Amino acid sequence: MTFPSIDTPAVLIDLNIAEANIDRYQAYCTDQKLHLRPHIKTHKLPMLAKRQLEAGAVGICCQKVSEAEAMIADGGIEDVLITYNILGADKLARLRELSEKVRLSVIADSKATVDGLSDTFAGASTPLTVLVECDTGGARCGVMTSEQAADLAAYTDAQPGLTFGGLMTHPPTGQEAAVQNWLSSATDLISASGLMVPVVSIGSSPGMWLAHDVPIATEYRIGTYIYNDRSLVAHGVCTEDDCALTVLATVVSVPDGSRAIIDAGSKVLTSDLLGLQGHGKVIGRPDITISGLAEEHGILTAETINLTVGDRLRIIPNHACVVTNMMDEVQLIREETQLGPHPVAARGKVW
Amino acid sequence: MTFPSIDTPAVLIDLNIAEANIDRYQAYCTDQKLHLRPHIKTHKLPMLAKRQLEAGAVGICCQKVSEAEAMIADGGIEDVLITYNILGADKLARLRELSEKVRLSVIADSKATVDGLSDTFAGASTPLTVLVECDTGGARCGVMTSEQAADLAAYTDAQPGLTFGGLMTHPPTGQEAAVQNWLSSATDLISASGLMVPVVSIGSSPGMWLAHDVPIATEYRIGTYIYNDRSLVAHGVCTEDDCALTVLATVVSVPDGSRAIIDAGSKVLTSDLLGLQGHGKVIGRPDITISGLAEEHGILTAETINLTVGDRLRIIPNHACVVTNMMDEVQLIREETQLGPHPVAARGKVW
Repeated sequence: MTFPSIDTPAVLIDLNIAEANIDRYQAYCTDQKLHLRPHIKTHKLPMLAKRQLEAGAVGICCQKVSEAEAMIADGGIEDVLITYNILGADKLARLRELSEKVRLSVIADSKATVDGLSDTFAGASTPLTVLVECDTGGARCGVMTSEQAADLAAYTDAQPGLTFGGLMTHPPTGQEAAVQNWLSSATDLISASGLMVPVVSIGSSPGMWLAHDVPIATEYRIGTYIYNDRSLVAHGVCTEDDCALTVLATVVSVPDGSRAIIDAGSKVLTSDLLGLQGHGKVIGRPDITISGLAEEHGILTAETINLTVGDRLRIIPNHACVVTNMMDEVQLIREETQLGPHPVAARGKVW
Repeated sequence: MTFPSIDTPAVLIDLNIAEANIDRYQAYCTDQKLHLRPHIKTHKLPMLAKRQLEAGAVGICCQKVSEAEAMIADGGIEDVLITYNILGADKLARLRELSEKVRLSVIADSKATVDGLSDTFAGASTPLTVLVECDTGGARCGVMTSEQAADLAAYTDAQPGLTFGGLMTHPPTGQEAAVQNWLSSATDLISASGLMVPVVSIGSSPGMWLAHDVPIATEYRIGTYIYNDRSLVAHGVCTEDDCALTVLATVVSVPDGSRAIIDAGSKVLTSDLLGLQGHGKVIGRPDITISGLAEEHGILTAETINLTVGDRLRIIPNHACVVTNMMDEVQLIREETQLGPHPVAARGKVW
């Protein structure tokens, strides 16, 4: 179904598929006695965050203060974890305001971040909950050793206005045993110092079905699972039929028998490859490669392209989250039923 | 200068550099007796388009109808070329409305596109000017041979509501002689049929200083030259000092001595590589590689990173145009003077 009345390029969200994805992973987490905390970066829609909470999620995860502000603006979301080092007077002031509206927790991986948080929350009626971010192999943010984690936990808990809330990591997929060891060691050290470790928060979509291999985890943070994408199909954690987000595009040129151009380029599909070949998968046409992107042009190649100017295609993008971020609105559908456009409330919130 | 009062991540536009870039290339085009038609995709700001027109540009180039709508909304821009096959009832109706507000021309590379334009403009008081897009080696859109160009020119000019306006191509850089031959051959064929070829429009920023090697061209379309970027520095057409757009970012984590994390990830810098290694150039730190991006994290590596949490950096991105498109607003500066935020009027206009 290519929805002739929807102007292209458009991002379609099939709510039937998204809801099934929510419920399927919630059932797994419930079965594993694991709290699920969806990362809203994938959908950026308060409406879908509330659906995730109704299904059983304990709260939401945001990466930036401005995302959290956009997500809670209409009410109905009461528990937010921001998994980012919040620095600077402006962001810290907004964080303090947020804390007066929702049950808020944040992370830190340095004393510099902790000091800024303490300066801001000293004197607050409720202390801010701070988790220590740990680098368990992902080589992004996080303290590098369990000893550093224990040191920063003790330091955090000793600062005015703060309470140590546990450990958080963005773990590397396929190294679950090492992640378990890392977090167990840190938890042991922290517990030995007399502090509780109430939350151990891990999560990444490629590793979603391996969460039980890190039994020390109490909470799983995950974003892409609600829409899925070509990258997660390649990881084997879902099928193409589980992909709720598709890009609807129109063929605008067929210069020769092996090439066609669509009106979705990098301004919709983005240049994210995530290790894949090509810039997305054309549904129903496994022979086509999206071999190149300009900002407004997607270049399709095949041995025999067999497309006509005006044809409409649906594409599973490599990476759903970044596609959502390109659009002021998405088009909601349920299979062949068109439900209309919906604003992407937390789009472009980088602050 | 890292502007402590500007919240990060931010996109800074140094107007002194942008204006010098406008004036330098306008002087070259004036010298070459070549009309300059800036592509607004790079800045997306009516204010800078008007500065380009004041300097001597003949009009602006947009890629989509919605970009043109955003650019002309405040008045002061009277000549627009849309270099895209416009298809579909909604876009065609908006194109007709646009034609009543500005001197408008578009392109087509197929009879299907021409037919849609003719259906829309038949009966218009002024016929729509349509240029034929030619593939002179860029392998994107465009008719493939000079004979096809001549055929489509004749077909276009014969349709109600349309007038043939000339040839347009997005030429491959470094193949100027071949482009000249292609366009000369097409022009000869069209002229022999009795039609005029009033405009031959070419252009691409990497080839900007080679425009005189395609003497049949009457018009040069170019976007990135106003800001420049790391890709154009690599092409040798500008220096780092000519880069008007920089990304201001804050170091949020320094996990070890060779790695730091900044708060600008793919949601600001984008994943566009344009053949380069790394995701941008940290000004003043040639030893640093931006070795990876997550959506909100930029990963910096160096033998000795020598950065502290809270440090601010300025980055020349690989590709300026796509960075502009990520931001609701840019911060205008002149060297060390801060002029304030400015909305990116044509951001996200993909329709």
